[in-house]
Amino acid sequence: MSQHSQVIAIEWRQQTLQLLDQRILPHQQQMIECQTAAETANAIREMVVRGAPAIGITAAYGIALDALAGRDLEAAYKVLAESRPTAVNLFWALERMAALGTSDGEQLLAEARRIHAEDIAHNLAMGQFGAELLGNNATVYTHCNTGALATGGHGTALGIIRSAWAGGKIKHVYAGETRPWLQGARLTAWELMQDNIPVSLVCDGAAAQLFRAEKPEWVIVGADRITANGDVANKIGTYSLAVLARHHGMKFMVAAPSTTFDLSLNSGNDIPIEQRPMSEVTSLQGIQIAPQKCQAINPSFDVTPAELIDAIVTERGVIHQPSVATVAALLDSH
Amino acid sequence: MSQHSQVIAIEWRQQTLQLLDQRILPHQQQMIECQTAAETANAIREMVVRGAPAIGITAAYGIALDALAGRDLEAAYKVLAESRPTAVNLFWALERMAALGTSDGEQLLAEARRIHAEDIAHNLAMGQFGAELLGNNATVYTHCNTGALATGGHGTALGIIRSAWAGGKIKHVYAGETRPWLQGARLTAWELMQDNIPVSLVCDGAAAQLFRAEKPEWVIVGADRITANGDVANKIGTYSLAVLARHHGMKFMVAAPSTTFDLSLNSGNDIPIEQRPMSEVTSLQGIQIAPQKCQAINPSFDVTPAELIDAIVTERGVIHQPSVATVAALLDSH
Repeated sequence: MSQHSQVIAIEWRQQTLQLLDQRILPHQQQMIECQTAAETANAIREMVVRGAPAIGITAAYGIALDALAGRDLEAAYKVLAESRPTAVNLFWALERMAALGTSDGEQLLAEARRIHAEDIAHNLAMGQFGAELLGNNATVYTHCNTGALATGGHGTALGIIRSAWAGGKIKHVYAGETRPWLQGARLTAWELMQDNIPVSLVCDGAAAQLFRAEKPEWVIVGADRITANGDVANKIGTYSLAVLARHHGMKFMVAAPSTTFDLSLNSGNDIPIEQRPMSEVTSLQGIQIAPQKCQAINPSFDVTPAELIDAIVTERGVIHQPSVATVAALLDSH
Repeated sequence: MSQHSQVIAIEWRQQTLQLLDQRILPHQQQMIECQTAAETANAIREMVVRGAPAIGITAAYGIALDALAGRDLEAAYKVLAESRPTAVNLFWALERMAALGTSDGEQLLAEARRIHAEDIAHNLAMGQFGAELLGNNATVYTHCNTGALATGGHGTALGIIRSAWAGGKIKHVYAGETRPWLQGARLTAWELMQDNIPVSLVCDGAAAQLFRAEKPEWVIVGADRITANGDVANKIGTYSLAVLARHHGMKFMVAAPSTTFDLSLNSGNDIPIEQRPMSEVTSLQGIQIAPQKCQAINPSFDVTPAELIDAIVTERGVIHQPSVATVAALLDSH
């Protein structure tokens, strides 16, 4: 299928779990084999795999590994639940596996495969809905990594770009490098190059000049959490792009499965901004770039207010001009 | 003097020119000695010294070195003029030295010292004018490096911050890291720490979140070229900050000596945007971060339209709400 990415980050093969080691991308492509839940938990903890949907799928396969070998599943659930304490999809996937109420390996493997397949199906549905919003011969700008590496395959924002490319609607993709972790440079550029989609890398601070000079049609990003009014928490740098897109008369699209909505929160003001270690800013890939003892601020995500967002694309359909009413309308309709 | 920086990047000592090697900052502080114009040209070419005003001062001392030793000055002017072909201040300084019409070493050294001293005096005047615009207990955000390292001492935008700090008006400075070259991380943070001015480093993409959360009073930046209508060409990332500052109701200040104005250009549309090598984006301090053969766009500066600028501070005074009329009014008044 032309819509499918060449990139495979999670694969069940010969009764073992194979994970693409994202820590050494893009310079080396190497699969790591997990044969137990404990090994799988280790791979999640050490960031062999990253991206909330991808972590959930991986953990589900980890349960299947121990079930097939007849090992203690209570220990398997425990070690996986402790691997990355803040990834919501991890707990969602483990709860779904536990809800089967079985220790049968084949049944649990089948459920893990379903979780994996559903994620891809949701991404493909988002891809279709999102691609329909693009004009022909579109240039788009994306941020962070939201692709096959972060999901079961295909991707959310990057999945829309893949689908639009497959449909002949994409002229060029600009990928923001996404400091401090450089997911854009290390992962998104690599994924797009694997699929022969034309991409240019851009420093985050150069986006405004690019918008002024080239005016891409859409900025397309993912989401970590979306509140009841349509405010979007996502990787740091997203909010900046939303302000700049509006200033330049461009459109701003968010792609996220409906499970990303947190209707218990009224607005983005209710989302605390996590501050990550200063060393992520003062050093880069282990090399100190700033002076020793230099202070830094390092918010790991930001909040984009709904009024700067033109469309939120989910697997259920598109929310135009997100608000309490339009968000509820889409989520209640299913 | 409390206004003077502890940072000395260019020093005439024992009849030689001492340059702080900016290539190895902030990790090592080492002076490089130049005894001839050719060695000085080499230091400029290899970026031991950078920043347009600093390059001009350095070149003037290079002429003095060869004049004092009785060497051929025609060759000295030539080798220095060829060291960095695009730095305007370099040619301005060499022309000013040549205009003396002498090969007398002491006279030429005295002129180089005057060029150096005038640059510092202009920076101190800008510092005074700019600091007066700040409220008490101000937080400010700056970009790139515009300090003692880039000038004869003190600095332009960073000089204003230094003067305001000396006057007790600065609470905190945020320094944007300024990808791709990381002048903010490597140079500005280091300079401010040398002078015990409180600074936090910020990834360029995190500025918007910071503006929303903390709303610094001013963004203060330098300029490479200013057109007749007050449009400002400066380091890539500047325009982004101007859009974001306006969106958040903050004020935007540009600091530049009056020699930065190019009245032969009507507006920023007349300034070509220089594209620098992709490798500056795809690698960092010699380490490849993006995939091999990854494309990138790397505009080295951008243009901020005058309507986003609240004040341009020069050594002659302040241009509020820059326009053809207000720019001409200040420049014609002297």
